[in-house]
Amino acid sequence: MVTQSPDRNKVEQLVRQLLRQQTAGPTQPGPSAPVAGKPLAGNQGAPNPLVVNVSARHVHVSQTALDALFGPGSSLTKLKDLYQPGEFASNQTVNIIGPRNRMIPNVRILGPIRDYTQVELSYTDGIYMGIDLPMRVSGNLEGTPSGVLIGPYGAYNMEVGIIRAERHVHMGPADLAYFGVKNGDYMDLVIEGPCATTFQNVLVREHPKVKLEIHIDTDEGNACHLNSATRMELIKK
Amino acid sequence: MVTQSPDRNKVEQLVRQLLRQQTAGPTQPGPSAPVAGKPLAGNQGAPNPLVVNVSARHVHVSQTALDALFGPGSSLTKLKDLYQPGEFASNQTVNIIGPRNRMIPNVRILGPIRDYTQVELSYTDGIYMGIDLPMRVSGNLEGTPSGVLIGPYGAYNMEVGIIRAERHVHMGPADLAYFGVKNGDYMDLVIEGPCATTFQNVLVREHPKVKLEIHIDTDEGNACHLNSATRMELIKK
Repeated sequence: MVTQSPDRNKVEQLVRQLLRQQTAGPTQPGPSAPVAGKPLAGNQGAPNPLVVNVSARHVHVSQTALDALFGPGSSLTKLKDLYQPGEFASNQTVNIIGPRNRMIPNVRILGPIRDYTQVELSYTDGIYMGIDLPMRVSGNLEGTPSGVLIGPYGAYNMEVGIIRAERHVHMGPADLAYFGVKNGDYMDLVIEGPCATTFQNVLVREHPKVKLEIHIDTDEGNACHLNSATRMELIKK
Repeated sequence: MVTQSPDRNKVEQLVRQLLRQQTAGPTQPGPSAPVAGKPLAGNQGAPNPLVVNVSARHVHVSQTALDALFGPGSSLTKLKDLYQPGEFASNQTVNIIGPRNRMIPNVRILGPIRDYTQVELSYTDGIYMGIDLPMRVSGNLEGTPSGVLIGPYGAYNMEVGIIRAERHVHMGPADLAYFGVKNGDYMDLVIEGPCATTFQNVLVREHPKVKLEIHIDTDEGNACHLNSATRMELIKK
């Protein structure tokens, strides 16, 4: 039972502070969804703009998961378009609970609905959550860690699906031809600037209708301080 | 005034959860102080072991700051030795308050006492705190952001001193001779492994009594997943 005491104000103050922090959540290392970055200068004569986007932590959901989290028959509503046509950041967010009973709140769901549920975190997030994240290509979830998502309607137990996304570049036919690579190849990505960094082993992912776009995570984006990058170069191995 | 209601248990549960999170603090992307890493295989014939250590966020303090934080005449007590002789992680930690009224709690002070006070954060931390971190060599603090440190005795207002440490390698005379570099030069650091990454612009810092040691921060350590690195190579530019 709560009793009144001279410490009441102090306690109230602490709780208010904690509630504010709760809303703020743990270190949020960037936007809560990939955003369309400005193209960088780089590979001369490339057929498409050279876009590097940082994927902050996010979630993809199946309809089954969405129903459990937001109520039966729910659908995702669009907050804003992402760089790839048809992809969008939704207005829906969930809390992720990990094995150390730590939570990352307000993680954005990216649409459209997929046929699997997947959480993409950085290694920084993984250490906080107590999860030894496997590095995977999106959708390749066999044997990956489980977790619990919490939505306003209810919880959803993921049996698998928490990963660090492998750094990758989306390419269409014109890009593959220009760079002389094929789906599944690996390339080097050189980021020039004050924190110049070369990311080796950038996976090529082919799709006929995709725009050229390189996806790195927040650890990688912050390691090379992408915001201050002056130039990039994709190099065939 | 707090009144009893059917929601009492729920509220108490939430507050307890928040208190646990408060203790845990925001994303803690690694150990709270640099730890002595195992040497990696690499540059053949190098005179000293090739050690790469991740510097997690930490604080250096002047005696003035320590007095304000822990009481007049305080001194740092050793928790554990760091890789460089004489350097140590202390038992003392402080909370750092940034401009967005966000706090990173329990940031470890590294000893010994210096003649300046400095906070070293990653860009991930900087985004959380709302600080546009300048990248600096330790001790070069002119024009860097201010902040407030909170200790058990009191607060200390830093007029300057919050930075991202520039990636660097400590070298003694034998190392400089072997690599053919001098103080202030820049080198490339190749980290091989599943998340292979090359960090360009690694600053050479000479000291006659230092052991070879490369310092990168948690963003960089997580970007290349240093834990799974198989080999490294320092390359003269």
